[in-house]
Amino acid sequence: MRNLLLTISYNGSKYCGFQVQNNGITVAERVQDAIERITGHRSDIKGCSRTDSGVHANMFCISFKTECDISCHRLRRAFDAVLPEDIAALSVEEVDDDFHARYSCVAKRYVYKIWNSTAKTPFYSDLTLHYPREIDIELLNKAAAHFVGTHDFFGFCSSGSSVVDTTRTVYDCHLSRDGDIVTVSITGNGFLYNMVRIVVGTLLEVNEGKILPDDIPDIIASRDRNRAGSTARAHGLYLDKVYYTLPESF
Amino acid sequence: MRNLLLTISYNGSKYCGFQVQNNGITVAERVQDAIERITGHRSDIKGCSRTDSGVHANMFCISFKTECDISCHRLRRAFDAVLPEDIAALSVEEVDDDFHARYSCVAKRYVYKIWNSTAKTPFYSDLTLHYPREIDIELLNKAAAHFVGTHDFFGFCSSGSSVVDTTRTVYDCHLSRDGDIVTVSITGNGFLYNMVRIVVGTLLEVNEGKILPDDIPDIIASRDRNRAGSTARAHGLYLDKVYYTLPESF
Repeated sequence: MRNLLLTISYNGSKYCGFQVQNNGITVAERVQDAIERITGHRSDIKGCSRTDSGVHANMFCISFKTECDISCHRLRRAFDAVLPEDIAALSVEEVDDDFHARYSCVAKRYVYKIWNSTAKTPFYSDLTLHYPREIDIELLNKAAAHFVGTHDFFGFCSSGSSVVDTTRTVYDCHLSRDGDIVTVSITGNGFLYNMVRIVVGTLLEVNEGKILPDDIPDIIASRDRNRAGSTARAHGLYLDKVYYTLPESF
Repeated sequence: MRNLLLTISYNGSKYCGFQVQNNGITVAERVQDAIERITGHRSDIKGCSRTDSGVHANMFCISFKTECDISCHRLRRAFDAVLPEDIAALSVEEVDDDFHARYSCVAKRYVYKIWNSTAKTPFYSDLTLHYPREIDIELLNKAAAHFVGTHDFFGFCSSGSSVVDTTRTVYDCHLSRDGDIVTVSITGNGFLYNMVRIVVGTLLEVNEGKILPDDIPDIIASRDRNRAGSTARAHGLYLDKVYYTLPESF
């Protein structure tokens, strides 16, 4: 039995997230269908993360066991051909028997893309949040730096989560601009439910002067969801990188 | 009567090009509807170019005359709000009475975007051409340089055009890479029917070794459509910039 790691990227616009559920089509179903079509057998798959409805992935990892003996190179091409237009197969590799896409993961990077122009975007409306007011990158980077470190992020978690330990370590959080697109990048050892979207919502309130950069430590320490900003819309969010070994720079 | 210059960008995926025609919805109709809704009157509009079905525009200029006295700033916002999601209003300005979006134009820049990765793109499938074989930018830039200058581009024009003079001046033609996206940029005083798409098709044949970079001058001089490459698909093409005064650098 081989244990395979399939890495995909996907446009989440039409999906109810990754994880199989009853109320809509998910990415996991499409991947399971593809595995069945290619290998002839249905496999149980492990995804590196649940993602919300509308969230995208530049990199998303899936592990599954199979008796199929097609080479990884040919499997990658077969997946890319069989998966629908909005899911691409980036690589297939053989991994150790105990590798698990979710439990072996040590860190993840998310990016949030903002279309920062007075005019709307005809190209990236499902791929970015339209925010017309000019973003002050320098100011927001001061706020973003306060998220770095090990903190109890209870106040940056939407209700409905069953997680008990709400402490997470953020390795990096910063913003950058490329033309009209502003990207918020956040890397950590794990994220609470909606945590990245609430961090982005909070940063946008800093941009509007409602929160000062140096208020962030107090807001985190308060563990009060009401003091953090609103939850930014899902469609600007991307799982960007999945780490199975921690870079030394972290 | 004011003469206004409206600059838009649009995603051409769902349109049969710019110019009003009988067999499908065009960008011009959407703009005319927006003008009527905002000013209360239908206006005759002049577009800077006809664009093919599926072609996009990062910048497209339209002039029209109106009695409407709303300020340019407010008009821009009204257009951005009223135009559909795939057409953005970038600016509105008042221009001289004899300004004509098409006839006053002295040069245009087109870009052609290629998704150059073995895997398909889940995000830009309608916005780029997927070309999996690795593009040799340096080699293709040698070929691209041969298009610069004043040439008779008769062999780089699709049949069905009624143009008599097929001589055009190309000011710049080059390729660049940004990650998996390769962009072909071509600037000239005018372009024949499908000329940019045939130039791109020819460059891709250079990449495949079917044409050598130094064959290009002969192919241009032959005026033989069959010696040039195939016409690259419309959906990677963007009108990128419209010039009403020629930069000194040209």
